[in-house]
Amino acid sequence: MTEPTAPTAPTEPTAPSQLLSPSGTAASGIGPALPPERLLLGPGPSPVHADVLAAQARGMVGHLDPWFLEVTDQIADQLRQVFRTGNRLTYAVSGTGSAGMETAVVNTVEPGDTVIVGVNGVFGGRIADTARRAGAEVVVLEEAWGRTFAPERIAEALADHPEARMVALVHAETSTGANQPLADIGALGADTDTLLLVDSVTGLAGVPLEVDEWHLDVVYSGTQKCLSVPPGLAPITFSPKAEAVISARETPVRSWYLDVAAIQRYWGAERAYHHTAPISALLGLHEGLRRGLAEGLEARWARHAEVGGLFQEHIQDRDAELLADARARLPQLTTLAWPDHLDEAQLRRRLLDEHGIEVGGGIGPFAGRAWRVGLMGEAATHATVDRLLDAIDELLEG
Amino acid sequence: MTEPTAPTAPTEPTAPSQLLSPSGTAASGIGPALPPERLLLGPGPSPVHADVLAAQARGMVGHLDPWFLEVTDQIADQLRQVFRTGNRLTYAVSGTGSAGMETAVVNTVEPGDTVIVGVNGVFGGRIADTARRAGAEVVVLEEAWGRTFAPERIAEALADHPEARMVALVHAETSTGANQPLADIGALGADTDTLLLVDSVTGLAGVPLEVDEWHLDVVYSGTQKCLSVPPGLAPITFSPKAEAVISARETPVRSWYLDVAAIQRYWGAERAYHHTAPISALLGLHEGLRRGLAEGLEARWARHAEVGGLFQEHIQDRDAELLADARARLPQLTTLAWPDHLDEAQLRRRLLDEHGIEVGGGIGPFAGRAWRVGLMGEAATHATVDRLLDAIDELLEG
Repeated sequence: MTEPTAPTAPTEPTAPSQLLSPSGTAASGIGPALPPERLLLGPGPSPVHADVLAAQARGMVGHLDPWFLEVTDQIADQLRQVFRTGNRLTYAVSGTGSAGMETAVVNTVEPGDTVIVGVNGVFGGRIADTARRAGAEVVVLEEAWGRTFAPERIAEALADHPEARMVALVHAETSTGANQPLADIGALGADTDTLLLVDSVTGLAGVPLEVDEWHLDVVYSGTQKCLSVPPGLAPITFSPKAEAVISARETPVRSWYLDVAAIQRYWGAERAYHHTAPISALLGLHEGLRRGLAEGLEARWARHAEVGGLFQEHIQDRDAELLADARARLPQLTTLAWPDHLDEAQLRRRLLDEHGIEVGGGIGPFAGRAWRVGLMGEAATHATVDRLLDAIDELLEG
Repeated sequence: MTEPTAPTAPTEPTAPSQLLSPSGTAASGIGPALPPERLLLGPGPSPVHADVLAAQARGMVGHLDPWFLEVTDQIADQLRQVFRTGNRLTYAVSGTGSAGMETAVVNTVEPGDTVIVGVNGVFGGRIADTARRAGAEVVVLEEAWGRTFAPERIAEALADHPEARMVALVHAETSTGANQPLADIGALGADTDTLLLVDSVTGLAGVPLEVDEWHLDVVYSGTQKCLSVPPGLAPITFSPKAEAVISARETPVRSWYLDVAAIQRYWGAERAYHHTAPISALLGLHEGLRRGLAEGLEARWARHAEVGGLFQEHIQDRDAELLADARARLPQLTTLAWPDHLDEAQLRRRLLDEHGIEVGGGIGPFAGRAWRVGLMGEAATHATVDRLLDAIDELLEG
């Protein structure tokens, strides 16, 4: 295994913040922000390739420039390929993955609608919260953290609530590392009026996701996970069935910013102004999608599976316990617990300070107990696993 | 005057989009997106300095990295300086200016609240729409496009609606070029329970804006106007009075993504995860604010006033009519109408194709009739005005 690399200090320290001067306009005393070098192995953001970073710095153009409108068409095409869908209504929301979640929910749900939400981690809970804010009657199905929902459980809930507008599940639970099987559940609702909404923020481009084949109706993701693009955009896709539900709404969407029908007037043929598109971020996404599609989606899934599996095998030799159900474990995001005598937060801080490696802490019931280790996108390599295991070994010996 | 520069063609043409292949995973056939060189003189985005673009490409770090948390503190300090405020609750919304608008409205308004909205252009209409979606009873005050609201008009509306939760006005109407005076209106509501909300998307850093001195309670902006930072973030600030209104809410905020109380747990001392911050965009904003504060806010206002005034003076010699009221004209955004025999859309397209200069078309009642010319941030220079006037002269002769 290779020697661990020490973290690189910023080449110029940033000055401490300065309070507002009486005139309010004094030079701020704030120096340039020069990021330290980090190996990003948390739950996201994942490492970004230099070409993608460079694409964000290529220059500025108008959001209605004919050249840029062609770029948005290309991004929509690229997203259809990574989502494995022919859905017309496919674009990148101008916000992070959470904005994708809100877009998915608020456009499809009207006050009084029943929405069945599977909660087996933090992110299912957020969908439920968002649906309630949109006026939905939420039926929560609970499952233990780290486990997934069986199709029978969903079938039962649908039988109990035939009026349900939607079932919502998390494909790749970033808080637990569980990988929710979706094909059989998608088949359940294919011939009904109920929509299937899927959070694949951490799933897209890391594990198989077949939007059309699995009959998924609304799927959103984030850019800063297995796509290895900076955070700030949320790829999203709506099936024709979901589009029909949106068209048949009787009440306005509660959000102006995230109203799909209005936004589609920009991404679609009409090219009408809604809000100013985040140009630099979209140029970065375009480049990141080019990298992903050049690798090939199946190859990328296989790389994540191999590298994540390798890490999960070796980390158990270090007395770490894997928290996600062995039958449904994400390779790209591993939750693990250290033995009780180890202080996870202290180990994690030392990993950052002494080795320049970021991993995530647990959240929800896993807080203070678990690590979340991401091997996503550019980080899913053998060299990364070597460097991480070496660093962990050094910490455990020290 | 200098010779107009021909637009630079992209050095590598982008390939046409390719349809989804049957397997969904074929190489996309999409080349790198290399932006043409444009001089951006529309209503935004404005030109971005190379240092700001470069800051977006400096590297990726985690959103909970101790180094990055210090950067967010610095950005909040910088924003307090450009907003001229000591408001604790000051940050950048993870979305464009429109997300700032929605954040401002949905956090302060509860269903049934009365909201008085001044509509003298497109953006007042959007505030009204957003407030209605949030459940407000909206009282619209109309004024002619290009004109502004007198304090007496607002005082009258407040007398008619003493129950009003909020008055909302647009500081710098990007659709008309009107500059709404705010000091006297702010004084009206200072001792009442009514909040004053202000859209300063195009105003901030371009014309005087004194959040504290003028008693403004909620003010939002965008990055892609007079700050000359790429689009994607919305600076926002809430007064203690607005914070108290938010704390006293009886109903949940309708948006999860834009819920200020939850987001403040990340930007504030607690540093709790809400959503993944858009790292690259924030690094760009940090650098852009450094540039703005190094210039000095008063100097920046003076530069916009001088350059915009020069353009407005000379463009009238070309038979263009200025559409905003002469007593309240923004220097950084000029709306102008050409004589009827000229085709504004054709002229505008030729300006882009033959000279590489983007200006905006009119929207709303000004569509098909007006141009919107922005001389914002990096574009507010004598050289830019020279280049634009030369190009216009060439088009009008041709």
